[in-house]
Amino acid sequence: MHTSGPQSCLSGIRILDLTQFEAGPACTEVLAWLGATVVKVENPSGDPGRKLGSTPSREGSWFNLFNANKQSLAIDLKRPAGLELLKEMARQADVFVENLAPGAIERLGLGPDVVRAINPSIVYAQLKGFGVGSPYERSLSFDPIGQASGGVMSVTGERDGMPMKPGTTLGDTGTGMLLATSILAALYRRVHTGQGELLQASMQDAMLQYIRGAFADPIDKGVPEMRNGVPGTNLVNMPIGLYPCKGGGPNDYICIYPSRVNPEHWDRLLKAIGRPELIGDERYSTVEARVANKADVNAMLEAWTTRHEKREAMRLIGEAGIPASAVFDSLELLNDPSMAARGIMQTVEHPRLGTIKMPTWPVVFGGETASVEPAPALGEHSGDVLSSWLGLDATEIERLRGERVI
Amino acid sequence: MHTSGPQSCLSGIRILDLTQFEAGPACTEVLAWLGATVVKVENPSGDPGRKLGSTPSREGSWFNLFNANKQSLAIDLKRPAGLELLKEMARQADVFVENLAPGAIERLGLGPDVVRAINPSIVYAQLKGFGVGSPYERSLSFDPIGQASGGVMSVTGERDGMPMKPGTTLGDTGTGMLLATSILAALYRRVHTGQGELLQASMQDAMLQYIRGAFADPIDKGVPEMRNGVPGTNLVNMPIGLYPCKGGGPNDYICIYPSRVNPEHWDRLLKAIGRPELIGDERYSTVEARVANKADVNAMLEAWTTRHEKREAMRLIGEAGIPASAVFDSLELLNDPSMAARGIMQTVEHPRLGTIKMPTWPVVFGGETASVEPAPALGEHSGDVLSSWLGLDATEIERLRGERVI
Repeated sequence: MHTSGPQSCLSGIRILDLTQFEAGPACTEVLAWLGATVVKVENPSGDPGRKLGSTPSREGSWFNLFNANKQSLAIDLKRPAGLELLKEMARQADVFVENLAPGAIERLGLGPDVVRAINPSIVYAQLKGFGVGSPYERSLSFDPIGQASGGVMSVTGERDGMPMKPGTTLGDTGTGMLLATSILAALYRRVHTGQGELLQASMQDAMLQYIRGAFADPIDKGVPEMRNGVPGTNLVNMPIGLYPCKGGGPNDYICIYPSRVNPEHWDRLLKAIGRPELIGDERYSTVEARVANKADVNAMLEAWTTRHEKREAMRLIGEAGIPASAVFDSLELLNDPSMAARGIMQTVEHPRLGTIKMPTWPVVFGGETASVEPAPALGEHSGDVLSSWLGLDATEIERLRGERVI
Repeated sequence: MHTSGPQSCLSGIRILDLTQFEAGPACTEVLAWLGATVVKVENPSGDPGRKLGSTPSREGSWFNLFNANKQSLAIDLKRPAGLELLKEMARQADVFVENLAPGAIERLGLGPDVVRAINPSIVYAQLKGFGVGSPYERSLSFDPIGQASGGVMSVTGERDGMPMKPGTTLGDTGTGMLLATSILAALYRRVHTGQGELLQASMQDAMLQYIRGAFADPIDKGVPEMRNGVPGTNLVNMPIGLYPCKGGGPNDYICIYPSRVNPEHWDRLLKAIGRPELIGDERYSTVEARVANKADVNAMLEAWTTRHEKREAMRLIGEAGIPASAVFDSLELLNDPSMAARGIMQTVEHPRLGTIKMPTWPVVFGGETASVEPAPALGEHSGDVLSSWLGLDATEIERLRGERVI
C-alpha cells in the first residue's frame, strides 16, 4: 500500500479493462501507474497486441510497454458463465474501459446500457476511431487513420511534399491520454455526487487537442495551417531548427531555438560559437536581417556544429542560455543515465523478456515515480481476481478452468 | 452550476494559474473545461503568449485557443502588496500551476517551499523543459526542444532524411496533458487523505509517453527505432499509407490502412476499387506477395483514388470495411459540419475577434461537451477575483488599482 507517490493516488479504484492494441491499453496503464487495480480482461486467445513485434520463437517487448502493472483475467465472454462472471465484476468496478471495434462490446452483451444498469455509479469509457454521431462512426480505425482524419498529417511533412505521419502514435496513445484525464475527472466528481458517467472519446476528435494551435491560421486568415518541414514551425525566426553535428549519424543533429522576442539570444549564440566579433553586425543583428541572410547564418552555425558531438554542442549552447537540444533517439533515451537516476527509465525483471528497461509514467510526484511491474502473462491472475473480487474459492475456480470458462 | 457534462466534474476547485505560452495554459484550460475555476495570474504586461500571431493592428486567435474559460487577474507580483495578495489566494487555492523558466517562480517568492508552507494541502505543479536532476535542468526550452530531447524528432521524417518536427506541439500540449492527468490524480487522493503534492513534469520526459512503442526496437534488437517517412510505420504491410485523390491539393490524399492480421481487408479493398477479379490472384493474395509487387499494388490503388475526391474515397473504402480516412486539414476540420453538430467545434462570440469557431475538450461526457467561453482580456477579472476569493470591497480594489498593484 503506497502512501506517497503516484501509486497512492487511485488506491482502491477497480478498473475493468476490455481494451486491446494501444489506445485503450495506454489509457489504463496510466491509471495502473496512478494506483488503480487494473484487471485486463482478455478472451482466451489474448489481446491481439500480445503478438505485435513478436516472432514464433521470441516474445517482443511491445505488449509489455503498454500493459505494465496490470492483472490479466482470461475469460470466455461468449459463454454464458463467463459473461455472468464479468457482470458480477462490473457490479464492483469503479471504471469500465473498452476500445473494441464499433458495436463489438454491445454484441458481447456488455454495452454501456447493460453495464450502467448493473452499476449506475460506474464510469464507462469508450474509445473509437470516430465520434458517436459522426458519419464515420461505424468505421474501423487504427492510429494512422486517427492522425489523417484529425489533421495531424496535414501539418506534418515537407512544405511542398506529401502529408506525413509523425513517428509518435498520437492517434492511439494521444487519445488514450485524454480519456485517462476524463476518467479521473469523472471519478473526482463521483466522490462528491455518486454519479456514474458515459465517456466517449474518438481518435479524430482527440487529435484536435494536439493541433489546437493549427486552428489560428484558419480562424485568422481563412487558410489551413501548412506543414513546415524539418523545423515544423513558421520560418519567421532565424536561426531555427536542426543543424548537423560531428558523427554524421541519422540523429546527429542539434535543435537550436533562440527566442524571437529575446534579441540577447543571438548575441549569446555568437559568443557560444566563437564569433563574438559579429555581435552588432547589421547583417545579422535582427531577426529580419538573419532571415534575409539565411544562407550565411546557417553556414556559420554549421561550421561550428559539425565540429562538435551533439551532446557537447547541447551543453555549450544550453549553458550559454539559448534553448537547444540534441536529437536523441530511442536507444539513447533508453540508456540515458539521468533518465535512470531520476526513475523515469526503470529496469524490470520480465519472466520471459529477461532484464529490460522501460519508461514509467513520466510525471514525478513528490520526488517519486511509479514502479514498473511487467505486463501480465495471459490469464496470469484469473484465479486471484475471481477470488478477490467475487470471493470464489479454489474448487469453483478449478471448475471454471475445467469448463474452459477461464 | 453544471450538474452534468464535463463542467460539473471539478466544481468548486480553485486553480492559481501562473502559466504562459502553451504547455502550462493547455493544461489549465483542460481543467477549466472540466469545471475548475482557473484564475490566470498575469503580470501587468500579460502572458507573452497574448502577442503570438497578433499584429499591432489585429489580435490573433492563438492566445484564445489556449486560454478559454479562464479568468484573468493582472497583478504586479514584484510589489510586496501584490505578492501578499497572491499568497492569500494560495491559502485558498486547490491547485497552483506554473511553467516559467527554471528558477523564475522561486525568484518571485512563490516557489513550492513557500506556497506549500502556506497551504500544505495544495497541489503544486511545475512544468519545465528538463526534469529536476537532469544535467539540463537549468536549460531553457520551447516545444521543439522538448521534441528533439525526448525522441519525437528521431522517429519523424523520411527514412533517409533528417529528423523532423511534427506539426503537432507535443512538447507543449503533450506535456500539459500528462500534467493535467497527474493533477487530477493528486486531487482525487486529496479528497481521501487531505494530502497536498508537488508534481514535476518535463517536456523531455513527457515525450517518452508519446513514443512508448518506439522503445520496442531498442529493447528487442538493441537498435533505435527509425523514422519511416510518409506512412510512419514499418513497411511490413501492403497496401498501407497515403494515396493521392482527385483535386491534387496539398492534402488531397486518403490514408488506407488494411489490417495485416485480417486477410479479408484486401479482398474487400479489391471489391471497393472495382477489381474483384483479382481476389485470390497469387500475385497479391498475401501481405508478402503484395510487398513483393508493391509498385503494381500502388498503381492499381492510385488509378482508383485519383478518380475520387478524398471524402468520397473515404466513404466508399470505409463502408467496405477497411480502415481509411481522408487527410483533413485544419480549415476543413474547423468547418466540419459533424464536428459542429457534435459539439466538438463550437462557435464563440469573442469581444475582439468576433464570431469565431474553436475546438473544445474533445471527450464527450454523457453526450455533452464543455461550452467554450472566450479567453479573458488582460486583467478582466482582477476585481471580481479579489472580491470573491479574498472578500475585498470596491474601495480596497480601487486603492490597489490606484497603486498599480492590480
